[in-house]
Amino acid sequence: MHFVTRKAHFNAAHRLHNPSKSDEWNEQTYGKCNYPNWHGHNYEIEVTMAGEPDPETGYVVDLGALKQIIDTHVLEPCDHRNLNLDVPFLKDILPSAENLARVFFEQLQGPAEAIASPNVKLYSVVVYETERNRAEYCPYKVSKL
Amino acid sequence: MHFVTRKAHFNAAHRLHNPSKSDEWNEQTYGKCNYPNWHGHNYEIEVTMAGEPDPETGYVVDLGALKQIIDTHVLEPCDHRNLNLDVPFLKDILPSAENLARVFFEQLQGPAEAIASPNVKLYSVVVYETERNRAEYCPYKVSKL
Amino acid sequence: MHFVTRKAHFNAAHRLHNPSKSDEWNEQTYGKCNYPNWHGHNYEIEVTMAGEPDPETGYVVDLGALKQIIDTHVLEPCDHRNLNLDVPFLKDILPSAENLARVFFEQLQGPAEAIASPNVKLYSVVVYETERNRAEYCPYKVSKL
Amino acid sequence: MHFVTRKAHFNAAHRLHNPSKSDEWNEQTYGKCNYPNWHGHNYEIEVTMAGEPDPETGYVVDLGALKQIIDTHVLEPCDHRNLNLDVPFLKDILPSAENLARVFFEQLQGPAEAIASPNVKLYSVVVYETERNRAEYCPYKVSKL
Amino acid sequence: MHFVTRKAHFNAAHRLHNPSKSDEWNEQTYGKCNYPNWHGHNYEIEVTMAGEPDPETGYVVDLGALKQIIDTHVLEPCDHRNLNLDVPFLKDILPSAENLARVFFEQLQGPAEAIASPNVKLYSVVVYETERNRAEYCPYKVSKL
Amino acid sequence: MHFVTRKAHFNAAHRLHNPSKSDEWNEQTYGKCNYPNWHGHNYEIEVTMAGEPDPETGYVVDLGALKQIIDTHVLEPCDHRNLNLDVPFLKDILPSAENLARVFFEQLQGPAEAIASPNVKLYSVVVYETERNRAEYCPYKVSKL
Repeated sequence: MHFVTRKAHFNAAHRLHNPSKSDEWNEQTYGKCNYPNWHGHNYEIEVTMAGEPDPETGYVVDLGALKQIIDTHVLEPCDHRNLNLDVPFLKDILPSAENLARVFFEQLQGPAEAIASPNVKLYSVVVYETERNRAEYCPYKVSKL
Repeated sequence: MHFVTRKAHFNAAHRLHNPSKSDEWNEQTYGKCNYPNWHGHNYEIEVTMAGEPDPETGYVVDLGALKQIIDTHVLEPCDHRNLNLDVPFLKDILPSAENLARVFFEQLQGPAEAIASPNVKLYSVVVYETERNRAEYCPYKVSKL
Repeated sequence: MHFVTRKAHFNAAHRLHNPSKSDEWNEQTYGKCNYPNWHGHNYEIEVTMAGEPDPETGYVVDLGALKQIIDTHVLEPCDHRNLNLDVPFLKDILPSAENLARVFFEQLQGPAEAIASPNVKLYSVVVYETERNRAEYCPYKVSKL
Repeated sequence: MHFVTRKAHFNAAHRLHNPSKSDEWNEQTYGKCNYPNWHGHNYEIEVTMAGEPDPETGYVVDLGALKQIIDTHVLEPCDHRNLNLDVPFLKDILPSAENLARVFFEQLQGPAEAIASPNVKLYSVVVYETERNRAEYCPYKVSKL
Repeated sequence: MHFVTRKAHFNAAHRLHNPSKSDEWNEQTYGKCNYPNWHGHNYEIEVTMAGEPDPETGYVVDLGALKQIIDTHVLEPCDHRNLNLDVPFLKDILPSAENLARVFFEQLQGPAEAIASPNVKLYSVVVYETERNRAEYCPYKVSKL
Repeated sequence: MHFVTRKAHFNAAHRLHNPSKSDEWNEQTYGKCNYPNWHGHNYEIEVTMAGEPDPETGYVVDLGALKQIIDTHVLEPCDHRNLNLDVPFLKDILPSAENLARVFFEQLQGPAEAIASPNVKLYSVVVYETERNRAEYCPYKVSKL
C-alpha cells in the first residue's frame, strides 16, 4: 500500500465556545481558548491519500491537483477568516482541532477521490493548531482499540 | 561580542486596518489581512541580548530569567488575545510584524537590561508572523544603508 | 477515529550500558553511546490519544490537561536528570529510545486515560533521541507483521 | 509493538517522463516536472523497522547499523546522481516519490532485516520530495481500505 | 532600523563545473558536486529589506508584493529548471550558493526597491542549498573584517 | 560581502557548576542546570565564514572542507562526551552556551582560515543548546553597543 501526503497552511482566528452552555462552563472548560475577542493560529494541514500508483503516471494521485482541491475546499473558505463566523461548512461546529480535521476530511473526500483512480481513497487529515498540538481524523488506521 | 537568544511563542488574533483611512484604502492596501472578522497567527519571537559573559556565571544573561521577562511583558498580555483590542501597550498601533517587533523591544528593554550587567544590552527582537514572513527591530546592526 | 497528539521535550544525560555484560560487549554493542562519562540529548516526545471527541467540548482529550499529565509523570522526573541514575521508574532499565517509549507509555496510560472519557485510549508514545533517530511504542497500530 | 525510525537525506536530479507516451501526454501529465533539462530535490527519507526490542541490547535494531545499510543501498547509488540515468536499480522506473519509496523498500528489506532478530521487519519507507510532498510505502499499515 | 524577510523556495538541478579548467581540476575541486549528469536541490531563499516602516501602512514593504517580485525575478526563471543551462541571467556563472545569492540580489534589487519608499533598501539574500549549507550576500552587514 | 554557513551537531552531557563558589550559590544561580548527575543536549552549531568568493571555484570556502575542520576540531572531541570532564580544550571552562561558542571559535579560527584565501575570515559561531536557547560569538558584527 502506498500513501501520499500534501501539506498546506492557512491563518485564521477562532475561539472555543459552546453556546449551549453557560459562560462559567465555557471558561472552566476552555480557559484562555475561550477569551471573547478571538485568538488565532497558523494552521498546518496534512492530507493523505492511499492506494496503488497508476502504472502509466507513477502517481497515486497528482499532488499538484490535490493541492488545487485543498486550496478550493479548505484554504479559500478558511484563510484569513474567522472559523466561528465566516466559514459556511463550519456553521454550528465547535472549531476544535479534532472537529476541523473531521470536517476538512468530509469536505475533501468527494473532490479528492474524484481526481484519482477508483481504488485510491482519502486516508487521513491532520490539523496542526500549533507546533505542539495536532489532531488527526483517519477512518482506516485502527478498526478498534 | 557575544549574543544570546531566547525564543518564545504566543497565539493571537489581529487585523490590519488603519482607522484614519477609508475602507477602500484599507482593502486595497492590506487585502485579506484586512478581513473584518480577524484572523490570527502562531507568533514566534526571538529576543537577543548582546555583551560579554559574566566571568562568574558564564552567562551574558540568565536565559531562564529572560524567559520570565518575556512571559510577563509580552506573552501574558498577548497570548490568546486580540492584538487590536486587548493589549494596552498596542493601543492605537497598527499590529504589523514591524510594529510588533519595535513595540516588544520597547516593552522588554528596561526589564531585560535590569537583570543583566550594565554592559549588556537588548540587541534585537524578531517577530515571525508565519514561517515565511518575519520582521526584526535592531537599533545596532547597521548604522546607515 | 480521531487521534490527538501533544509534543513535549526535556533534556537529560544517559549512557547505554548493560551491567550484566562485559565491558568489551558493551563497547562493541553501543560504541560511543557507551562512553563512561555520559552524553545527553534534547529528547522530544509525542503522546497520542485515540477515540471520539466529546460532543459537548469537541475534545478527544483536553490537551492542556494532557500536558499537565506529561509534565508530572515524565518531565518532572526526567528533565535535566541522568536517566540511568536519577529516575525511579527507569531503575534497572536500559535507557534506549525503544525502552523509554514503552516505559513512558506505561507511566502515562493510567493518568492520561483517567482524564478522558472511557472510550478514549492512550494510543502511542514517540521518543526522538535526535532529529534523525526515534522510537515509537504503540500497541494498536499493527496486530501482526 | 515498537517502531524505530532513521532519517537520511540525499540530493539528486530527476525528471518525470514516461518514454512510452507522447511528449504532449508527458507535458500535460507532469507539467514543470517534465522540463527536459532536469530539476532536483533534497530528498529526505525515513526508514522504519518494527518488532520487539532485544532484551540484552534494548534495541529493535541498532540504528547506527541501519544507517550504514541506508548509506550503502540508497545514498551511495543516489546521492548527487541523476535518478533517471545513473542508478541501476531505478532503470526503467519512473522516479515519482511513490515509486522511489517502494523501490527503496525493496532494496533495503533484505539487508535491513538481516541485521535484526527474526521477528523484526522493515515496516515502511517514506520519501519527502519537498517539505510539502511525501510518499510512503508500507505493506503493513492497512490491510484494506 | 527595521528588517523584514520573506522566504521562498524552488527546486532545480545544477552541477559545479568550471569549463575553463580541466576535468581533473573540476573533479578534485568539486567532488560529487561535479558529477556529469547533474544533481539538484530544494533551494530555500530569504530576502531581507531594511528601513523604516511607512507610518500609514506599518510596513517596511508589503511582503505580499515582495513575494510577487521574488516569484517573477527568481522563481519563474529557476523553478524546476537546470541552473547551468536554462536561466538567462546565470549564463556563464558558476551556480555555487555564493554566486546564486549575489546574482539573485542583483536581480531583485531594482524591482524590490521600486515597490518601497526611497529609504528602504534590499539588505541581503540568503540561499540554502541544503538544510546544513547556506550562503548570504549582504553589502551592508560588515564594512571590513 | 559574502557569508557561508555550515551546520553540524553533536550530543553531549554537561552541568553548570562553578567550583570556586559554594553549592548554595551554584544551586541558586543555575537551578536544574546544576543537578549533580549531569544532563545533556543535542547541540547544533553554525559556523560562518565571510569574504569574497574565489573567482575560479565560486566558493568563499569549500564547505565540505569546512565540515572536515568542524568534525576534527569540535565534533570528535565533544560528541557523546561529557563537556565538563572529557574535552581538553574545555578544561576549567564553564560550559555555558556563551563560553562554548567562544571556545569553538578559537579552536576553529586557525584551521578554518588556513583552508581559505587570505581575505576570508571566520566570522561567527552559533551554539544552539536547545531549539529555544542559543548563543553566538562574533567579533565583527557590532563594534560597540
